[in-house]
Amino acid sequence: MFDNKEQSRTSIAELGEFGLIEYLTKNIKIHHKSTVKGVGDDCAVLENSDHQTLVTTDLLVEGVHFDMSYMPLKHLGYKAVMVNLSDVYAMNGMAKQITVSIAVSNRFPLEALEELYAGIHLACDTYQVDLIGGDTTSSTKGLLISITAVGEAKAEDIVYRSGAKPNDLLVVTGDLGAAYLGLQVLEREKQVFQVNPNSQPDLENYTYLVERQLKPEARKDIIKLFKDLEVKPTAMIDISDGLSSEILHICKQSKTGCNLYEDKIPLDQQVISTCEEFNLNSTTIALSGGEEYELLFTIAQEDYPKIKGNPNFTVIGHITEENEGKNLITRANQKIELTAQGWNALNKG
Amino acid sequence: MFDNKEQSRTSIAELGEFGLIEYLTKNIKIHHKSTVKGVGDDCAVLENSDHQTLVTTDLLVEGVHFDMSYMPLKHLGYKAVMVNLSDVYAMNGMAKQITVSIAVSNRFPLEALEELYAGIHLACDTYQVDLIGGDTTSSTKGLLISITAVGEAKAEDIVYRSGAKPNDLLVVTGDLGAAYLGLQVLEREKQVFQVNPNSQPDLENYTYLVERQLKPEARKDIIKLFKDLEVKPTAMIDISDGLSSEILHICKQSKTGCNLYEDKIPLDQQVISTCEEFNLNSTTIALSGGEEYELLFTIAQEDYPKIKGNPNFTVIGHITEENEGKNLITRANQKIELTAQGWNALNKG
Repeated sequence: MFDNKEQSRTSIAELGEFGLIEYLTKNIKIHHKSTVKGVGDDCAVLENSDHQTLVTTDLLVEGVHFDMSYMPLKHLGYKAVMVNLSDVYAMNGMAKQITVSIAVSNRFPLEALEELYAGIHLACDTYQVDLIGGDTTSSTKGLLISITAVGEAKAEDIVYRSGAKPNDLLVVTGDLGAAYLGLQVLEREKQVFQVNPNSQPDLENYTYLVERQLKPEARKDIIKLFKDLEVKPTAMIDISDGLSSEILHICKQSKTGCNLYEDKIPLDQQVISTCEEFNLNSTTIALSGGEEYELLFTIAQEDYPKIKGNPNFTVIGHITEENEGKNLITRANQKIELTAQGWNALNKG
Repeated sequence: MFDNKEQSRTSIAELGEFGLIEYLTKNIKIHHKSTVKGVGDDCAVLENSDHQTLVTTDLLVEGVHFDMSYMPLKHLGYKAVMVNLSDVYAMNGMAKQITVSIAVSNRFPLEALEELYAGIHLACDTYQVDLIGGDTTSSTKGLLISITAVGEAKAEDIVYRSGAKPNDLLVVTGDLGAAYLGLQVLEREKQVFQVNPNSQPDLENYTYLVERQLKPEARKDIIKLFKDLEVKPTAMIDISDGLSSEILHICKQSKTGCNLYEDKIPLDQQVISTCEEFNLNSTTIALSGGEEYELLFTIAQEDYPKIKGNPNFTVIGHITEENEGKNLITRANQKIELTAQGWNALNKG
């Protein structure tokens, strides 16, 4: 019990988040036939007789994932639910239930928790999800939210990360980079406010960016649209850590390469103008900015007519054989290796 | 965003854990027929065609729920799983899967996390549970573990807290008070060690108590035994917050009273001798000591012959009409009101 505490030390930061997860999960044994899929995708999949159950979980930590000086608690509650529902939609399933656990220091008044739960309830009502349980405890410091979402889908409808095939099209919903830029705008306003507490934030030119950061929406609508269009993606993932990081996940698990075309990446006009103002490269922001909760998916070429011209979708590249590598084709028609520089919570801690 | 932050303030500690949970969950709306039971029992219950799914979640926070100076990480991992499995068994279900999320500061070396996961894997192997997902992130301070367990049971087998009826017998598994006393012994050794780091802890007389604190076992065996004995409890709960607190939960949700007999409460000999040594009242310890993970349940009188003489079970009282109150009948045959003084994480923060 009071053993020698000297141990060899390996830094967690060294491994990175994905390295750590891989390391910690490599020895997992599966005991039940009903565990169709455990660790390694957006959701776990459990077998039932008429459908499969999807389970996913996320942890949000104050000072790591959110800053309460510009994140209103109601928005935080809403966003915490979105993060989880997005993982269920990324399996082509429908989220049905969530559990919410919070650890909170006694410095929080009850009214603050009410605000937080108001956001959680709003998300549940809007997305038709049932809050079915949780745990509430004190923390020694700050606020922490742990949410688990349970969803369902027919076995034949579930889309894994591993199903992409060479020649499939790489498609993204919505536009990219806005949530990350929204965070930059809010950080700048916070600094201005700290210097001059009487300053009034002027966010008029950044409304879309700020909304994407503070009130992201999970793409339940896209899952319905897939059904209407009779499209089933071959692989899918939600964009929480940045486009490049997510593309690499699909390629790795599908054992493929890819060509991503820089000039195809969808950007909102506010993203372009704000990148100019902040002197940032908009492609870098779109590739690496996280917290988008858009869906990235691949479809067979023959399904292209079904999505062609639909404003929800942008074809940004295609899947190749694994030995062709993972490439970004620049506007200057140069082929460069796609690397993950995604938003990495572990490096921020 | 930078609004007036002045708000009315109500202290969370004032409400207590259960008051807070009740407060935060009172407006929950249920959208799906498949949500058979949401917040308010050990587990949520979800409808499937051939069985029902059980979901439960718990959050363990360093400095609130555990002290790493005497809780080896492997034991902590094992215990964190037990806490959740115990909730599934308390519904008369079988735990099948868990998700594990951890927030950890960078001061932890990888080897420490390996130890933690070694305990989690051991628990999964021993209890035949699949680890199916989770989230790993950094914390600004300390270690936090959030586990969600998923289980299943046939609809007709599930036991809620609300099914107790007047004249039912009140039964407990195992014996009580040991886990709490184990904590007291470890706290004392920690203080001795802080004064004299060369001291060697002498735990010989407290082995059972320390084991109950550091390596509790969830009572999966009892669920199997119920099947063998063809007993279905009318109500059931696991003892995580102390016997009196759990009895009051059953009475409240079943709308009944109860008589609990002090002289029937099962105590191990080490509990009795250590209470004498620490000058503690063993009944108080048994009523209020938490973290037991024994099962408290009620059965119809006619089922008594099925459990009679079984060393796993002790009949400690019976259920009465609600207007008869919740009573402790002392050894001196006095009737006093049973009050909850359970282990309350929120008051410890």
